[in-house]
Amino acid sequence: MAMESEAKTFIDTFNFDKCIKTSPYGFKNYHLKNNNYEINLFVGESDKKFNVQSVGTVPSAIAVDQMIRSFSPDLIINAGTAGGFKSRGANIGDVYIINSTQFHDRRIEIPGYAEYGRYFLKHENDFYKKIKKQLNLKSGLLSTGDSLDYIDTDKKLVEGREASVKDMEGAAIAWTCYHNQIPAVFIKSITDIVDGPYSTVDEFLLNLQEASQNLSKALIRLIEGGCI
Amino acid sequence: MAMESEAKTFIDTFNFDKCIKTSPYGFKNYHLKNNNYEINLFVGESDKKFNVQSVGTVPSAIAVDQMIRSFSPDLIINAGTAGGFKSRGANIGDVYIINSTQFHDRRIEIPGYAEYGRYFLKHENDFYKKIKKQLNLKSGLLSTGDSLDYIDTDKKLVEGREASVKDMEGAAIAWTCYHNQIPAVFIKSITDIVDGPYSTVDEFLLNLQEASQNLSKALIRLIEGGCI
Repeated sequence: MAMESEAKTFIDTFNFDKCIKTSPYGFKNYHLKNNNYEINLFVGESDKKFNVQSVGTVPSAIAVDQMIRSFSPDLIINAGTAGGFKSRGANIGDVYIINSTQFHDRRIEIPGYAEYGRYFLKHENDFYKKIKKQLNLKSGLLSTGDSLDYIDTDKKLVEGREASVKDMEGAAIAWTCYHNQIPAVFIKSITDIVDGPYSTVDEFLLNLQEASQNLSKALIRLIEGGCI
Repeated sequence: MAMESEAKTFIDTFNFDKCIKTSPYGFKNYHLKNNNYEINLFVGESDKKFNVQSVGTVPSAIAVDQMIRSFSPDLIINAGTAGGFKSRGANIGDVYIINSTQFHDRRIEIPGYAEYGRYFLKHENDFYKKIKKQLNLKSGLLSTGDSLDYIDTDKKLVEGREASVKDMEGAAIAWTCYHNQIPAVFIKSITDIVDGPYSTVDEFLLNLQEASQNLSKALIRLIEGGCI
């Protein structure tokens, strides 16, 4: 989870060990083990130069790479808040499970590179199927970019592959898991409507708490319901 | 170095050991050790899904993170081709040493996050000073984004901090080195003029060989001249 505010309810609900700082990048690692499963939760700490949460593709890929090397996990779950597209049926507070990921801000118009830039990947693995059914979540395509906004140039890049959900980490985490052959599951809770009339920042700040609570509820059901 | 085509002359000139593939991401590691220095050269191999070179911020940050963990280097050098701004005096074939880096495509207009998105860092370390003087290179600000193009939205983001050079990796490598407290040096050879009349792709493909040769010459002088 990229932001501590998104993770708070979840951390408070489970009996995680005290967190350990594990890397020069300042990720916090909360650990939990019982008879049924072992969870290592990574949460970004404040960036050491700018004192904000380490959101975006580069820190999240580095974090997931470190998790994979440290714990050889059976599954990576990327859980977070995200924007939703009302044209695809998304509402604020909805929780999605993601069936595929792509980037929308990597435009590389050299022959052969355009598809690399988008890096479209499917994630309909066994975990996805079980979780989607058991939690009865909406599903859709997640599109990732390093900006909070979503500009016309982004729209043009993904024409024909319309996203339901937009975030700032998913496709980079997908890239990392793909190269390590680890299945990934993406659970995203909607804070703001990308194709709506209101400012993303205002909606994001207004709905962050509700969306984070819905996200935590879904994660708790996912874990307690025996999906993993 | 992100692309093998950029690295070829350099690899051919020095007596590198046969390369070792070191990671699930497919980076190639060429190794060289003599009485004066030890070099580990990482070059991206073809992406395993799309069969093109692994350019961009995420793979380069992952590669540098791996180099730092594997070799505890005294210095990271990011060498590559790049775009240049003629309004700042850049010409095709010029070789730059970079005095500072920033991102131009991470727009996060949440209070406190805008500066994190840009992640401006200075790199005027002792290596920089020695190399700049000895090789008599041009110097300037490097701006990084995950797209080959440079759109008006990018320009707007960096207003007041005008770049001389534009690439797709530098600022992510700078971020990685900063967190690990390892000095970084960026040597960039100009393939195309960002603010000129010609297509970036056409200029890039036309000038890649010349720019790569100039880059290699600078690297060879840097190493043989005792700058490191």
